[in-house]
Amino acid sequence: MADDRIRQRIEDFIHDYAHCIDDDRLEEWPEFFTDPCRYQIIDRENHARGSVVGVMTCDSRGMLRDRILALRDANIYEPHVYRHLISGIRIRGETDGAWSVQSSYAVIRTMQNGDVSVFSSGKYLDKINLEQDQLRFLERIVICDSIRIDILLVIPI
Amino acid sequence: MADDRIRQRIEDFIHDYAHCIDDDRLEEWPEFFTDPCRYQIIDRENHARGSVVGVMTCDSRGMLRDRILALRDANIYEPHVYRHLISGIRIRGETDGAWSVQSSYAVIRTMQNGDVSVFSSGKYLDKINLEQDQLRFLERIVICDSIRIDILLVIPI
Amino acid sequence: MADDRIRQRIEDFIHDYAHCIDDDRLEEWPEFFTDPCRYQIIDRENHARGSVVGVMTCDSRGMLRDRILALRDANIYEPHVYRHLISGIRIRGETDGAWSVQSSYAVIRTMQNGDVSVFSSGKYLDKINLEQDQLRFLERIVICDSIRIDILLVIPI
Repeated sequence: MADDRIRQRIEDFIHDYAHCIDDDRLEEWPEFFTDPCRYQIIDRENHARGSVVGVMTCDSRGMLRDRILALRDANIYEPHVYRHLISGIRIRGETDGAWSVQSSYAVIRTMQNGDVSVFSSGKYLDKINLEQDQLRFLERIVICDSIRIDILLVIPI
Repeated sequence: MADDRIRQRIEDFIHDYAHCIDDDRLEEWPEFFTDPCRYQIIDRENHARGSVVGVMTCDSRGMLRDRILALRDANIYEPHVYRHLISGIRIRGETDGAWSVQSSYAVIRTMQNGDVSVFSSGKYLDKINLEQDQLRFLERIVICDSIRIDILLVIPI
Repeated sequence: MADDRIRQRIEDFIHDYAHCIDDDRLEEWPEFFTDPCRYQIIDRENHARGSVVGVMTCDSRGMLRDRILALRDANIYEPHVYRHLISGIRIRGETDGAWSVQSSYAVIRTMQNGDVSVFSSGKYLDKINLEQDQLRFLERIVICDSIRIDILLVIPI
């Protein structure tokens, strides 16, 4: 079992990632990842089938940054904000200095007109390591419960 | 106050129960309970009134297993998956080796066509003990906030 | 970093606040605050703009109690209950014995007819101190993600 110290740090790290997005500090978001990295959003059925094709796949910090730049530039989508709820953070093991972590999430989306809905739910499968005393995602796979990904997927989950 | 060790184990146990259901490993679900046990889903009003008649009541592992067998066999319901969000796990006391624990939950349900909704919210009132170094529910009472239990209650909460 | 002891106590305190409301023990709610105090519900845009005018503002326990008395007396609103989901509790610092704490919330609302919806999501910005070994909110600012606050805001968030 992971010791208390690293357990707390991993929990804080996962919560800070969510606050970073929900507080709209998206320019800091790529810093949560190693470089190279793997960030993928995929639906439950494709993931079960072993597909490597996700709705979104990034494998470097540069690609993560590009997504944020595009999102900031675009402005073609209807403004909205996210609120992440994270539950059930469980460290499943450690291999070569990387912790495998599972957690559940729901993203509540609020549109500018005030409409509120559950935008997405699912789970995160993470590989997290420690570089110069800083935790980072080597890999964060977002497995959405729904096979129908909303066309409004612009902000990262 | 419960010591840190047992506190962490109880939190992990409650989260593992949720992951077991959400990951569709339902055959493992009865193992979270002692035998005999008490698993009951009841609405807030009937619980407040002291009613012992729930929407679902099981008092042995055999009954829990039967539910899962029926659910796997039936296939008459529209396929859907759950995502549990657990919040506010609080150990309220210990009597004769059983911890009384309260927590809040919401279950997000995703239908095969992609429809997402809050299926149920409420609280768990648990009695948890330690048998041969394994935590198990002596009792898990699920008190739903809504008095209208969806007809689609087939997967356990 | 806050030590483990106070970290756990702050987490428990924030969860107990939510259970107090969700269990309809509203008469105990003012006791979670110091006297004087600051409890404010404000939307994200007005908060970002630095506005001090919230949808609801109370600065003493007496005002908090008055709200509950009015709510109990009124009975002009359609009965409903809340379920708080709290996520991402993060202690951001300590100044003069007061901890600054950030967390995310969602409130699931269930009407008497059984209708369930996400009523509000947002974040809490708290200042918490320790008085005679009892934690209390010096300040709890509730920043709602939606600028459209539901007319049915009678129960505190």
